[in-house]
Amino acid sequence: MNRLLANLVLRRRVINGGRIIAGESMLQSQEFAAAVVFSVRPFGPAVIAPDQDFGSFQWRRMISSAAEPAAKAPSVKQAEAVSKKEGGDQVAVSSYWGISRSKITREDGTEWPWNCFMPWDTYESNLSIDLSKHHVPKNFVDKFAYRTVKLMRIPTDIFFKRRYGCRAMMLETVAAVPGMVGGMLLHLRSLRKFQQSGGWIKALLEEAENERMHLMTMVELVKPKWYERLLVLTVQGVFFNAFFVIYILSPKLAHRIVGYLEEEAIHSYTEYLKDIDSGAIENVPAPAIAIDYWRLPKDSTLKDVITVIRADEAHHRDVNHFASDIHFQGKELREAPAPVGYH
Amino acid sequence: MNRLLANLVLRRRVINGGRIIAGESMLQSQEFAAAVVFSVRPFGPAVIAPDQDFGSFQWRRMISSAAEPAAKAPSVKQAEAVSKKEGGDQVAVSSYWGISRSKITREDGTEWPWNCFMPWDTYESNLSIDLSKHHVPKNFVDKFAYRTVKLMRIPTDIFFKRRYGCRAMMLETVAAVPGMVGGMLLHLRSLRKFQQSGGWIKALLEEAENERMHLMTMVELVKPKWYERLLVLTVQGVFFNAFFVIYILSPKLAHRIVGYLEEEAIHSYTEYLKDIDSGAIENVPAPAIAIDYWRLPKDSTLKDVITVIRADEAHHRDVNHFASDIHFQGKELREAPAPVGYH
Repeated sequence: MNRLLANLVLRRRVINGGRIIAGESMLQSQEFAAAVVFSVRPFGPAVIAPDQDFGSFQWRRMISSAAEPAAKAPSVKQAEAVSKKEGGDQVAVSSYWGISRSKITREDGTEWPWNCFMPWDTYESNLSIDLSKHHVPKNFVDKFAYRTVKLMRIPTDIFFKRRYGCRAMMLETVAAVPGMVGGMLLHLRSLRKFQQSGGWIKALLEEAENERMHLMTMVELVKPKWYERLLVLTVQGVFFNAFFVIYILSPKLAHRIVGYLEEEAIHSYTEYLKDIDSGAIENVPAPAIAIDYWRLPKDSTLKDVITVIRADEAHHRDVNHFASDIHFQGKELREAPAPVGYH
Repeated sequence: MNRLLANLVLRRRVINGGRIIAGESMLQSQEFAAAVVFSVRPFGPAVIAPDQDFGSFQWRRMISSAAEPAAKAPSVKQAEAVSKKEGGDQVAVSSYWGISRSKITREDGTEWPWNCFMPWDTYESNLSIDLSKHHVPKNFVDKFAYRTVKLMRIPTDIFFKRRYGCRAMMLETVAAVPGMVGGMLLHLRSLRKFQQSGGWIKALLEEAENERMHLMTMVELVKPKWYERLLVLTVQGVFFNAFFVIYILSPKLAHRIVGYLEEEAIHSYTEYLKDIDSGAIENVPAPAIAIDYWRLPKDSTLKDVITVIRADEAHHRDVNHFASDIHFQGKELREAPAPVGYH
């Protein structure tokens, strides 16, 4: 295994556009390091082939594309035979498309347990961000956005009261929508106009993914009840379509609404933290997914998790108010470099 | 500047979850390395503040979040004054959200010219992939998908004939849609079901981004005419909605269609290459964006670009046929780890 690691490190060191996984950090640091070891499976060479082929693609960005011997690519017949042999019970080797998965481990040798995010998607939250910033509504669009969000809070307050766990969960199922809608519409626009997006597509999609990770974390803490699931279905159906239309009609309004939504989110999470401090909500240990995603200490608690989530929301608040401000200047987003990787 | 670089390398070395930008590669390697130097602007401290703040976020994933002195975060009043002072002509410093952009340079000191992709998004294409693979239609869904794609080729052949430049451009405006639609629908599903996606959201969005980069490359080579732009508008309008509905009704059919679309794309690009070899199409120098995105040698030509694009399409073919196969097994995508980073 060490040989494999060393080899991997070496292969990466050769290339990867200035971004490598450092041998030291992989072998010694306390940070997560992705170490891929080809999982040797009890199959004949025909099955190992896809594995190797996978190895060759999983590191597409990291390893040199010095052409692998064609022999590695499994012939259709060869692998079809295999997939017949294996039957449908082995998803990973069920097709002859050479797509299988190698084992991703942390530097301590333990297996990387997540598929929904990789070690290189994790980050440490910037807790220094100013939580109190507020965009004072200046014109009709601002005021309309502000009032809309305030109105949306009323039913939420009535329904959830101080059950901040459920509340946060519901909030995230909504908060993960705008980034995806905005990113998608900018993507389609980029295709139609034959124009680059200035990185805003990626920036907005990152926001959506980050919000989804919040939800995946909250779900570990709060098991949603059937009527909450039903509520999510309804709310998503309405909100997705409404936001879709709003973004097409007025991106400046759409981003402003999200900016204010995030301000409310920060408020809710602050209340959440108050209840944890007062003991009204038990400060349970942080779920494993949160510890891995935000690189939190092993002994982190719910309070730490809510604190980093709140910091994320503050970053999204800034991005969306900024985006709205750009539109208010009569400019397009692509004219201002996007805050890619802003967490 | 060297001090800044060294400092940056040092800060990254400390952290970044096993992924660092290596000092050596940044200072010596021939690969692109992203080096961020804070752009010192001729403004008062109030304006430099957002810049520094940006510095602190641009490297969010890379630098430790040891809390920055709060002083760095510009106070709303302070920066509002600035934005008034600057007026609307400076997008980057127009808002008080502390979001500005630091200068990204290659290791050779030249400025990174792209906003639509960053040095760490670039990769070297794996040209060893088997271009001849074909999924033999086995059942009604397969045959329907195959016939549909074959039918779609007829008008394309009539309209474009052997004008492969325009043809490729049109192809990419369509090819960039399915990944975005699939990724978005899986994202919404993940939110509704409170379930992880097994990484498939990211895998499909990566496909969409990659196809968009193909388009950005083709646009450098072929300036679309007004009627081609009109055609793109129409085709996107129809295809986006059609694919959206198909993906909701039958993801297995949707992914199979994309699989066959990519098989056709490989065919078209092979024909394109034939015309380049025969001299029918001039083998012009590769556009700068392609050289940067695929890390091609400076003296690369159109032929090299089309070759790597074709390899990308072959990877997408495999991903989508694989996804369809998973559905055919009566399984959900998330049950098979997604091929994230598969180019």
